[in-house]
Amino acid sequence: MNPEEFRKIGHQLIDWIADYRASVADLPVRSRLEPGVVRAQLPATPPIHPESFDAIFTDLEQIILPGLSHWQHPSFFGYFPSNGELSSVLGDYLSTGLGVLGLSWQSSPALTELEEVVTDWLRQMIGLSESWSGVIQDTASTSTLVALLCARERASNYSLARGGLQGEENPLIVYVSNHSHSSVEKAALLAGFGRANLHLIAADKNYAMKPDALEEAIQADLEASLVPCAVVATTGTTGTTALDPVKAIAEVAHRYNIWLHVDAALAGSAMILPECRWMWDGIESADSLVLNPHKWLGAAFDCSVYYVRDPEHLVRVMSTNPSYLQSAVDTKVKNLRDWGIPLGRRFRALKLWCLIREQGIEGLQTRLRRDLQNAQWFAEQVQATPSWRVLAPVPLQTVCVRHEPPGLEDEALDKHTLAWVECVNNSGGAYLTPAILDGRWMVRVSIGALLTEREHVDALWAMMRREAERPQTHP
Amino acid sequence: MNPEEFRKIGHQLIDWIADYRASVADLPVRSRLEPGVVRAQLPATPPIHPESFDAIFTDLEQIILPGLSHWQHPSFFGYFPSNGELSSVLGDYLSTGLGVLGLSWQSSPALTELEEVVTDWLRQMIGLSESWSGVIQDTASTSTLVALLCARERASNYSLARGGLQGEENPLIVYVSNHSHSSVEKAALLAGFGRANLHLIAADKNYAMKPDALEEAIQADLEASLVPCAVVATTGTTGTTALDPVKAIAEVAHRYNIWLHVDAALAGSAMILPECRWMWDGIESADSLVLNPHKWLGAAFDCSVYYVRDPEHLVRVMSTNPSYLQSAVDTKVKNLRDWGIPLGRRFRALKLWCLIREQGIEGLQTRLRRDLQNAQWFAEQVQATPSWRVLAPVPLQTVCVRHEPPGLEDEALDKHTLAWVECVNNSGGAYLTPAILDGRWMVRVSIGALLTEREHVDALWAMMRREAERPQTHP
Repeated sequence: MNPEEFRKIGHQLIDWIADYRASVADLPVRSRLEPGVVRAQLPATPPIHPESFDAIFTDLEQIILPGLSHWQHPSFFGYFPSNGELSSVLGDYLSTGLGVLGLSWQSSPALTELEEVVTDWLRQMIGLSESWSGVIQDTASTSTLVALLCARERASNYSLARGGLQGEENPLIVYVSNHSHSSVEKAALLAGFGRANLHLIAADKNYAMKPDALEEAIQADLEASLVPCAVVATTGTTGTTALDPVKAIAEVAHRYNIWLHVDAALAGSAMILPECRWMWDGIESADSLVLNPHKWLGAAFDCSVYYVRDPEHLVRVMSTNPSYLQSAVDTKVKNLRDWGIPLGRRFRALKLWCLIREQGIEGLQTRLRRDLQNAQWFAEQVQATPSWRVLAPVPLQTVCVRHEPPGLEDEALDKHTLAWVECVNNSGGAYLTPAILDGRWMVRVSIGALLTEREHVDALWAMMRREAERPQTHP
Repeated sequence: MNPEEFRKIGHQLIDWIADYRASVADLPVRSRLEPGVVRAQLPATPPIHPESFDAIFTDLEQIILPGLSHWQHPSFFGYFPSNGELSSVLGDYLSTGLGVLGLSWQSSPALTELEEVVTDWLRQMIGLSESWSGVIQDTASTSTLVALLCARERASNYSLARGGLQGEENPLIVYVSNHSHSSVEKAALLAGFGRANLHLIAADKNYAMKPDALEEAIQADLEASLVPCAVVATTGTTGTTALDPVKAIAEVAHRYNIWLHVDAALAGSAMILPECRWMWDGIESADSLVLNPHKWLGAAFDCSVYYVRDPEHLVRVMSTNPSYLQSAVDTKVKNLRDWGIPLGRRFRALKLWCLIREQGIEGLQTRLRRDLQNAQWFAEQVQATPSWRVLAPVPLQTVCVRHEPPGLEDEALDKHTLAWVECVNNSGGAYLTPAILDGRWMVRVSIGALLTEREHVDALWAMMRREAERPQTHP
């Protein structure tokens, strides 16, 4: 959708929401639908071709609206209120429209600093002293989990850096490649396994986990009376988009009855292209997998989809069932509170629904193929240029490169790399994030923003050459 | 903000976002600001009186925009793309504007069923078999944590129902009241403490935790070589908005050096009223606390604020530091990835910023006082009516009531309660959620939706009497 279409439909949407809020008092507060009624009215398969937003609005009114319980209704006296004041709604609209992320300060300084200011405003408003620092989480469930994790680690003198909550006898072991995403390590530490029980499996020259090394590690651990528990394979690592061999890893996992989780956060989007599905061959043998439509696919952040093959097990782990959350239909329906950590949840499916319908499968495929081709083209340019190297295979949309002028090695090379990247980033013309590979800094060129066409990649390449090859940046 | 103001400013906002997206290519991709520059331009204290949205737009353009790194820019080649396709942005706008929650199916059936449909569409699009069930999480960090928790529980044969990951010697113990929210129990189980190490502390007749019972439990546990770790006190429990005595609990917690977390998810909003602050007297002695501006205060869901007194400890527990996330300014700035579970984060501060500015402290206070008065008025009506009882003190905005016609007891009374509540809910005229208190069903009347005026509470009370007192509902 281009900005002019967005403007047109956006105005319609604003009017629709304004009308909804103005007339919400006339609607029945609690939805009267029986389980399955909404689902039965929606197509079981996704649209191949784009649909108009008019069709989406029609379904919204005819199918979705009758299936809502109206939390903003003046006669909503259930649970606790979840007020979405309209000024705050506009603030959220800004957030989604800007589409910036705050993983680190640098990734959008104002995001972090406004959060510091506003949580400090709130601190003053509720009469707390200056000794408190605030941060926004999604729900109190998460805040409380964070609190208990902090309590656990204080009382155990940072057990996560050792064996976690586990004793020395028969601890559960998690296997990851040393190219797994940092969130995997973090999850293992937060889940109480302990760093000592997170075993790193070696990767091959293409940065993919070696299944035979995994099996050797498992056997050695079994001999040492440790308990192999889970292996996390990655389809498209963050550093180089390396592809762990899912099929071979799954065979090992099954042989030893350990959980296989596949992290396809980025690459999962590419699986809408049949020609890419070899990349996670064996996926049907996994126990769980994650892919983030909020990355490449285009769903507004945040939207991460978690798939499992045994939902009963998931519910058993995640479920609590206090009286104030029980209802007469509990045995017939899916209660999302039992499918993850937070109790409350936004209506996130809407953004995925609108995306898939408005783009159609074909529209999404066309864009992803464009990006794959741009990555191939870029890698070819780099490879054909003296003193430049492509450092890893390019199965997806990320190209890992380094400029290696003759005579520059080790720390001097690192210094050169970080210097020219900083020049590119400071220019405002492009944004690249460097990373360490095999102990040396290199540059990840991650292609795939919605607006990125060949001309932008071309311009990037010219800028990279200009900054890296200019004489004064060589020590 | 009323719907007509929302309509007017909403149209401006749509144009602003459309213009932003249309011209994003002209902006420097990475923000060039030094740490602290955004913060220094923002007032250190919140506005007492309402401000216009024009002032907010001006600050957005002059202060916030230069502090953004533009993830939707065509020359953004960092990290991985985080595409917010404009169709998906509109879907998210619908979600925020509707302001409905999906904790359970009943809380908005269409939310759950559309999520089932859309995650199934995506399953088909990426070529997975029908053996997979999908659910939307916020980020892959959370999805992966969920996966490892599920793996942990499978390999340990549901250790969370026993001692968690902890051995039988010297396990860490968490203390909660039996009126704590279900999320506290869930957090303790997910954090690996184990249900056996979650010790329930008795409450007094007002449903508040008894500090002497807490101390007795701690002493008994110490004698049994268990390790007291944390206590969770609640300011405003979910069942009855009971107030655990924070000060007395903090004294016990300090005596035994255990972590005190205060769950003020609902009641925290009321602390903007000085006359309510006695309710969490002693709060400065806590280690952490949570309050949810997305509940009563009016911030669009989701927005939970977590305050800590020792942020270094929080960062030590939550931090991972892979090369692709490092930057030159890391020592000078706050990296939000180290303050919670997810790596990526939305710009959630915007919705709190807009709320506080547009309403002003006074505007927010006026609304909350209205709700407190409505709750008192409602409790008085109930108390003055034969066969009706108010079951718990009403310090906040929730009134726990039961209709107790002569001769109805035990299961018959439960049946009567659930029957008349269901009649109210089915009527569409109001929505109430029943809960169990002292082993019997009762009805929580939680007042405080934005639009709820005295007339709506009055109408509710008439409806409750009509449904509960009509002859045929008596067995």
